[in-house]
Amino acid sequence: MNETALVFAPISGILGLLFALYLSNKISKEDTGTDKMREISSYIHEGAMAFLTREYRTLAVFILIVFMILGLFINWSTAICFAIGAVFSILSGFFGMQVATKANVRTANAARKGQNKALEIAFSGGAVMGMSVVGLGLLGVGILYIITRNAEIVTGFGLGASSIALFARVGGGIYTKAADVGADLVGKVEAGIPEDDPRNPAVIADNVGDNVGDVAGMGADLFESYVGSIISTLTLGVVLFKDGRGVLFPLVLASIGVISSIIGSLFVKGKEDSNPQKSLKNGTYVSSILVLIAAGILSYTLFGGLKAFWAIAGGTLVGVIIGQLTEVYTSADYRHVKKISYQSQTGPATTIISGLAVGMYSTVPSILFIAVAVLFSFFVMGGFANSMAGLYGISLAALGMLSTTGMTVAVDAYGPIADNAGGIAEMSGLPKEVRQITDRLDSVGNTTAAIGKGFAIGSAALTALALFASYSQAVGIKAIDLLNPLTLVGVLLGGVLPYFFAALTMEAVGKSANEMIEEVRRQFRENPGIMEGKEKPDYARCVDISTGAALRQMVLPGILAVVVPVAVGLILGAEALGGLIAGSVVSGVLVAILMANAGGAWDNAKKYIETGEFGGKGSGAHKAAVVGDTVGDPFKDTAGPAMNILIKLMTIVSLVFAPVIAQYGGMLINNLVK
Amino acid sequence: MNETALVFAPISGILGLLFALYLSNKISKEDTGTDKMREISSYIHEGAMAFLTREYRTLAVFILIVFMILGLFINWSTAICFAIGAVFSILSGFFGMQVATKANVRTANAARKGQNKALEIAFSGGAVMGMSVVGLGLLGVGILYIITRNAEIVTGFGLGASSIALFARVGGGIYTKAADVGADLVGKVEAGIPEDDPRNPAVIADNVGDNVGDVAGMGADLFESYVGSIISTLTLGVVLFKDGRGVLFPLVLASIGVISSIIGSLFVKGKEDSNPQKSLKNGTYVSSILVLIAAGILSYTLFGGLKAFWAIAGGTLVGVIIGQLTEVYTSADYRHVKKISYQSQTGPATTIISGLAVGMYSTVPSILFIAVAVLFSFFVMGGFANSMAGLYGISLAALGMLSTTGMTVAVDAYGPIADNAGGIAEMSGLPKEVRQITDRLDSVGNTTAAIGKGFAIGSAALTALALFASYSQAVGIKAIDLLNPLTLVGVLLGGVLPYFFAALTMEAVGKSANEMIEEVRRQFRENPGIMEGKEKPDYARCVDISTGAALRQMVLPGILAVVVPVAVGLILGAEALGGLIAGSVVSGVLVAILMANAGGAWDNAKKYIETGEFGGKGSGAHKAAVVGDTVGDPFKDTAGPAMNILIKLMTIVSLVFAPVIAQYGGMLINNLVK
Repeated sequence: MNETALVFAPISGILGLLFALYLSNKISKEDTGTDKMREISSYIHEGAMAFLTREYRTLAVFILIVFMILGLFINWSTAICFAIGAVFSILSGFFGMQVATKANVRTANAARKGQNKALEIAFSGGAVMGMSVVGLGLLGVGILYIITRNAEIVTGFGLGASSIALFARVGGGIYTKAADVGADLVGKVEAGIPEDDPRNPAVIADNVGDNVGDVAGMGADLFESYVGSIISTLTLGVVLFKDGRGVLFPLVLASIGVISSIIGSLFVKGKEDSNPQKSLKNGTYVSSILVLIAAGILSYTLFGGLKAFWAIAGGTLVGVIIGQLTEVYTSADYRHVKKISYQSQTGPATTIISGLAVGMYSTVPSILFIAVAVLFSFFVMGGFANSMAGLYGISLAALGMLSTTGMTVAVDAYGPIADNAGGIAEMSGLPKEVRQITDRLDSVGNTTAAIGKGFAIGSAALTALALFASYSQAVGIKAIDLLNPLTLVGVLLGGVLPYFFAALTMEAVGKSANEMIEEVRRQFRENPGIMEGKEKPDYARCVDISTGAALRQMVLPGILAVVVPVAVGLILGAEALGGLIAGSVVSGVLVAILMANAGGAWDNAKKYIETGEFGGKGSGAHKAAVVGDTVGDPFKDTAGPAMNILIKLMTIVSLVFAPVIAQYGGMLINNLVK
Repeated sequence: MNETALVFAPISGILGLLFALYLSNKISKEDTGTDKMREISSYIHEGAMAFLTREYRTLAVFILIVFMILGLFINWSTAICFAIGAVFSILSGFFGMQVATKANVRTANAARKGQNKALEIAFSGGAVMGMSVVGLGLLGVGILYIITRNAEIVTGFGLGASSIALFARVGGGIYTKAADVGADLVGKVEAGIPEDDPRNPAVIADNVGDNVGDVAGMGADLFESYVGSIISTLTLGVVLFKDGRGVLFPLVLASIGVISSIIGSLFVKGKEDSNPQKSLKNGTYVSSILVLIAAGILSYTLFGGLKAFWAIAGGTLVGVIIGQLTEVYTSADYRHVKKISYQSQTGPATTIISGLAVGMYSTVPSILFIAVAVLFSFFVMGGFANSMAGLYGISLAALGMLSTTGMTVAVDAYGPIADNAGGIAEMSGLPKEVRQITDRLDSVGNTTAAIGKGFAIGSAALTALALFASYSQAVGIKAIDLLNPLTLVGVLLGGVLPYFFAALTMEAVGKSANEMIEEVRRQFRENPGIMEGKEKPDYARCVDISTGAALRQMVLPGILAVVVPVAVGLILGAEALGGLIAGSVVSGVLVAILMANAGGAWDNAKKYIETGEFGGKGSGAHKAAVVGDTVGDPFKDTAGPAMNILIKLMTIVSLVFAPVIAQYGGMLINNLVK
C-alpha cells in the first residue's frame, strides 16, 4: 500500500455524500399525507430553517474575526482550513436538518400503514445526517491533507468544526429546552392540554427544537469529534512514522468506516411489529464488525503486526461499554431509575437528591473504563519504551470509538425524527394507532440517544487527551509538571471552566424558558379563542422568541472557550495551558457524565411512574418526578452535551495557537516576577 | 531567637486549654433556668454524648488497625503519633460538645433577661471548642516535634487528626441531616406542627444533630486543617532551612495565633440590642491584626525580610475574601439569593436549576482567588529561582489563613449553641421574646457558618497543595508529568473520587432520613396521645436511629479515603498517585464550593421568601423554596464539608505512605507491561 491510497479518503467522503443524496431523494418521493400534516410540517420546516439561517448569520461574524486572527498571527493556510471546517460543519447541519424536517411528516404518514415503513423512513432521514457528517468530514480532512501535506495546518479544519459545533450545541440546546419547558409548563401544567396539542402556541417551537438541538446540534457535535479524532491521529502519526504510514492508517480506516456505515445502514430493517431497537442494533453491529476486520488487515499490512488493531479494538470496546453503562444508569430496566421513582414518593427534594446521586455514581465506572482505554492503548502500542507510539495508541482508541460515526449519527438523528412524526400525528388529528407506532419508535430513540451521549463523552475524553499530546509536541515542551505552581493553577482554572460554562448555559435555558412562558400565557390571555380551538395561535412568535434567546445566549459561552485558553497560554505560559487542558478535560468529562445520566435517569423515572408504578400519572410521586425531569432537561440536552465540545474546542484552540504560545507564552508572568 | 523558642508551641497550647477550662467553669456557674429547660437540655446532652461514645467505639477499631499497619509498614514512631493525633482530635470534639450542650440551656436562660448575656454565654461555649482545637493541636504537634525532631514522623499526628475528622464530619453530617429532614418532613409538613415542637419525636435528635454535626464535626474538621497547615510548613521548612528556622517560624506563629485568639475573644462584647454580628467581627479583626503584626516581626527576625510576612498576609487576605464571597453568594442581601427566590415562583424545578447555577458560578471567583494565593505566595517567597522556598510560601499562605483558627472555630461553634438555645426556649414554652433573641443570635450564626465554610474550603485547598509538594519530596520524584498517561489516569481517578464520595454521603442522608420518617410516622400513628400533648414521644428511639444510621454509613467513605491513595500508589506508582492528589484537590474543591454555596443560597432564599417576599410563607414560591432548602441540606452540611477533609486526608495518607510507595509503587503495572 502506498501514498496514493490517501485518495481513498476524499473518495469515500464523496461516496458517503452520494449515499446521503440517494437516501434524500428516496425520502422525497414518499407521500406527505394529509393537507393538515403538510401544513404543520411546513411550520416546523420553516421554523428550523429560519433558526439555522439566523444562527449562521451570527456565526459568519465570528468566523470572519477568527479567520483574520488566524491569518495574521498563525498563517493564511490554517485560516483557510478553519473557514472550510466551519463551512463544512454548517453544511452538514444544513443538509441533515433539511432532510430531517422532510422525513418527519413522511414517517408520520407511513405510520398510518405500519411500523416497518415508518422505521425505514425515519432511519433513512437520520442516515442522511450521518452520511453528511462523515462524508464532509472525511472529504475535508482528506483533501486538505493531500494538498497541504501538513497535519498542523489541517488542524485549522478541526478548529472550524469545533467552534461551529460549540455554537450549534449551545444554541440548539438552549432553543430546544426553552421551547420544551415553556410548552410543558404553561400547556401541560397550567392549561391542562396534552403534549403536542395544536392549541399550544409553543408546540411548533418545541418540535423545531428537536431538530435544531437533537439533529443539527448533535450532528455538529459528532462532526467535530470525528474530525478531531482523525486529526489527533494525523498530527501524532506524522511525527512517529516519517514514511507516512501514521497518516495513511487513520485516513484509510476512516474511509472503510464510511463504507461500513453505508453497508450497516442497509441492515436496519425488521419484520412488521418486531422490536425496532433490534434493527438499529443490527446495523450498528454489522458496521462495527466490518471496521474491526478492516482494522486488523490494515494494522498487519501497514505496521506488520496487530498492535494498532488492538488499540482500535480497545477503543471500540470501551465505547460500547460506556454506552451500555449509560443504559444501566438511565433505563427503567435497572435499579437506579427505579430507586429515583421510589424516592419520588417523598417529594421533589428526594427525587432531586437521588437523581444527582445516580449521576455522580455513574461517573465512577465511566471514568474507570476511560482510564482503562487510555492505559491499554498506550501500553499496547508502545508504553514508556516508545511513548510517542503510546500516545498514538491513545488517539487510535478514540479513532476506534468514532470509526462508525456515520452509523452512530444515523441512529441518534433517527430519534428526533420519530419524535417529530409523533408530534405531527397528534397535531393533525391522526388516529391513536398512528401515535402508538411513532411513540414506539420514539421510545427506542430515547434509549439510543442516551447510549449515543455516553459514546460521545467517552470519545471526547480520548480525543481531547490525544490532542493534548499533540499540543505538547506542537508547543515544544517535554513535560507538564504538576509540581510547577503555574501548571497547578492551570489545572484549577481548567477545572472551574466547565462549572462556569454549565452555569451559563443552564441559566440561559431558564431565562429563555421564562420568556417563552410569558408569551404563551399572553396568547392564552389575549386570545381566549385559542383554547376553544377557534383561533390559531401565533406559532411564529414563539419560534422567534426561542431563536432570539438561543442566539443571544450562545455567544458568551462560545467566545469564552476560544479566548480563555489563548489568554492563559499568553499570560501564564505553555505549561499552565497544558494544566488548563488537563483540568478542563477531567472536570468537563465528570460534569458531562453526571448531567447526561442524571438527566436521562430523571426522564425515565418519570416515564416509569407513568406506567402505573408508585401511584402512576397524576400522583404525588409523578409530580415530584416531573420536577426531576424538568431539572434534567437542561442537564442532558444543553449543559451536559456542550461539555464534550468545550473540552475538545479548548484543546484544539491550544493546538492551533501553539506556535504563538511557544514564542510569547508566559511573558507577562515572567516579567512580573523578575 | 533560638531553638528553645520551640517550647512556645506546647506552652501556648496549654495556655489555650487553660483558657478553655476557665470559660467552661464560668459557663457552668450560670443558671440553667426552669426544670423543664433542664429536662430538655439533659435529653440533648445525653443524646449527643451517646452518639459520641458509640462513634468513638467504632473509631477505636479503625485506629487500632491503622496503628498496626503503620507500625508494621512505616515505623512505630509514626504509628504512635497517629494514635495521639486521633485521640487529641477525639478529645477536642469531646470537650467542645460537653461545653456546647451545657452552654445551650444557659444561653436560653440568659436570653430571658436580654441579648447581651446570651451572646456572651453562647460565644464562650463556642470559644471552648475553639481553644480546645488549637490548644490540643499545637500541644500535640509542638511536643511531638520537640521529642522526635522529625517532621515526617509528626505527619502521623496529622494522619490521626485527618482520619477522625473525616469520620466525625461524615458521621455528624449524616446524623444531623437525617434528624433534620425527618423532623421537618413529618413534623412541619405532614403533622403541621411548628419547628422545635416538643410533640415531634425527632425534635431532640434534631437538636443533638446540631451539636454532633456543627460543633463536633466542624471542630474536628478545623482541627485537622490547622494541624495540616502547620505540618505541611514543617515538612517543607525542615528541607529548606537546615538551621531550624523553617520549623521555628510556623510553630511560633501558631503560638501567637492562640494568644491572639484569646485576646480577640475578649473583644466579643456588645451593648444591649447592638448587632451581634458586629461583636463577633470585632473579635475576629483584633485577633487577625495581632497575628499579622507578629508575623511581620517574626518574618523580619528569623528571615531578615518581609517575604514570609507577605505570604502569610496574602493567605489571610484571600481567606477573608473567600469568606466574603461566600456571603455574596449565600446572603439574601445580594442578587443571587434574590434571583433564586424569584425563580421559586415558577416551581421547584426552576428553584433547583437557579440554585445549582449560583453554586457553579460561585466556584469561579473562589478558584481565581485560590489561584492568586498560590501564585502570589509562591513567587513572593522564591519563585522558580528557588522553588522549594516558593512551595514553602504556599504552605505559609495556608498557615496564614488558619493562624486564627481558635477564633474561627469559636465563631462557628457559637451558631449551633444559639440554635439549640432557641430550640430549648421553644420546647420549654418560654415567652416569645426569648425566642426572638435566640433567633437573632442564630441568624448571625448562619452567616458566620457560611463564611466559615468558605474559609475552610480555601484553607483546605492551600493546605492540600502544600502537602502535595511535601509528598513529592517524601516520595523522591522530581516531576509529576501530565504527559505521562499514568499521571493523567491518576488525575482522572482523583477527579472522580469526590463525586463518588458526594453520592455516597448524600444517599446515606436520604436512607437515614427515610428511617427517621418511618419512625416518627409510627409514633404518631401508634400513640395518638403524642399529638394531643398528653403523651411524651419516644425521643430516645429517634436519637438511636440517627446514631445507628450515621455510624453504619460513615464507614465506607472513611475507609475509601485511606485505601484508594495507597492502592493507586502501589498499583500505578508514585506519579499516578501525584496525579490522583491533584485531581482530587481540584475536583473536590469545586464540588465543595458548589455544594456549600448552593446549599447556603437555597436556605436563605427560603428565609427571604419567609420575610414576605414573592407571596411569603405558605405560597407556591415558599413551597418550591423549601424543596431547594431540603436538597441543599445534605449539600451544605454533609457532602460539601466532607470534601475538604477528603482531599486533605488523601494527601496526608500519601505523604505518610510515601516511603512504601517510593519502594514498591507501580510494581504491578511495571510487571504487567513488560
